[in-house]
Amino acid sequence: MLICKVVKPLVSTNRIPDFEHKHLQVVLDGSTQKVAVDAVGCVPGDWVICVGSSAAREAAGSKSYPSDLTIVGIIDHWEPEPPKPPATPVAS
Amino acid sequence: MLICKVVKPLVSTNRIPDFEHKHLQVVLDGSTQKVAVDAVGCVPGDWVICVGSSAAREAAGSKSYPSDLTIVGIIDHWEPEPPKPPATPVAS
Amino acid sequence: MLICKVVKPLVSTNRIPDFEHKHLQVVLDGSTQKVAVDAVGCVPGDWVICVGSSAAREAAGSKSYPSDLTIVGIIDHWEPEPPKPPATPVAS
Amino acid sequence: MLICKVVKPLVSTNRIPDFEHKHLQVVLDGSTQKVAVDAVGCVPGDWVICVGSSAAREAAGSKSYPSDLTIVGIIDHWEPEPPKPPATPVAS
Amino acid sequence: MLICKVVKPLVSTNRIPDFEHKHLQVVLDGSTQKVAVDAVGCVPGDWVICVGSSAAREAAGSKSYPSDLTIVGIIDHWEPEPPKPPATPVAS
Repeated sequence: MLICKVVKPLVSTNRIPDFEHKHLQVVLDGSTQKVAVDAVGCVPGDWVICVGSSAAREAAGSKSYPSDLTIVGIIDHWEPEPPKPPATPVAS
Repeated sequence: MLICKVVKPLVSTNRIPDFEHKHLQVVLDGSTQKVAVDAVGCVPGDWVICVGSSAAREAAGSKSYPSDLTIVGIIDHWEPEPPKPPATPVAS
Repeated sequence: MLICKVVKPLVSTNRIPDFEHKHLQVVLDGSTQKVAVDAVGCVPGDWVICVGSSAAREAAGSKSYPSDLTIVGIIDHWEPEPPKPPATPVAS
Repeated sequence: MLICKVVKPLVSTNRIPDFEHKHLQVVLDGSTQKVAVDAVGCVPGDWVICVGSSAAREAAGSKSYPSDLTIVGIIDHWEPEPPKPPATPVAS
Repeated sequence: MLICKVVKPLVSTNRIPDFEHKHLQVVLDGSTQKVAVDAVGCVPGDWVICVGSSAAREAAGSKSYPSDLTIVGIIDHWEPEPPKPPATPVAS
């Protein structure tokens, strides 16, 4: 599963009916913004666990739900990693 | 799900019959061009939600549809991120 | 789906019998060489649509076919992108 | 399967009930932290084999378990690769 | 499918019973080491075809086998690509 930060809700009026009434959230996976189905009720700023692959479907409620990324848990305490300093050269 | 920008329709005369009459769109995922099945009716320039993995099949209409990337919604308002400036060095 | 260029056929005498008689092609996905099952009959130099994930199996002929990348269409006209120039710095 | 190093357990009080009582571990995949379901009983510092894709579900105990990354084995002896020196230029 | 080079067998005494007696091999995918289930009987140094996604399960012997990467063929002749020289700048 991915460790992501919730950015904001996403509004898409013209979408397939299979999404039903579930909330979509923009999440940050590293430096990439993705869209995840919210199965737990999170708010912007939360650090969350996102499940992908085919497991995202059942995690969103049913085997036929069209999700490939679903928020399945809010992490109690998470300290994000600081930006990495340049790698130290290897002495040969 | 991925946040992509629609570039243009894709024409492929010699393709497997399983694709049926559905439209294929070239979409931009970050800086990579991919092909997605259009399930909502979008036009070039739209910012869209694309679902991948096995969920792309049912999102395209049926469990046996051969898609691994399907456009499932048009985003109402989307402000793409500006190009990132170089990372600031970390003081140790 | 990925947009790939066909490089050449691949010969693998010692392989699992599930591949049957289908042709394997080396394709270029960006700068990475991969192997795809050919479901359309393409030749080196063709630009093709490759489907991955679980959809690659049925696209190759049956739900139990062991493919994770299948060539499902030949693109009529494709102009590859030129190599990208260095990104322009952002004025702050 | 991925070769990962176990970092620490992850606590998520607000999570979907499908996760049941199984332990979640933060693992390091290269330089990226991910979350995996622990099916073998490992401890921080262990080098482990993590299975992804749809296989992660059954490896975690049942076909409907919502995992996309499951720890399926502890490696007996593993010597991680040293950081890579810069690539040698190619003479043309 | 991926084109990988076999590095060495992997020993994991503490692993889930679902792996049965099948051999695990460390393979090199580009510069990343991964673990694959060996379905063909290969030796270190062989260039092999590895199938991922859900197809890896049936390729390893059954639909419930917990593999996400299975070696499905040995390539008869493979010439790896030389390291790439730096890209030529584009004149504007």
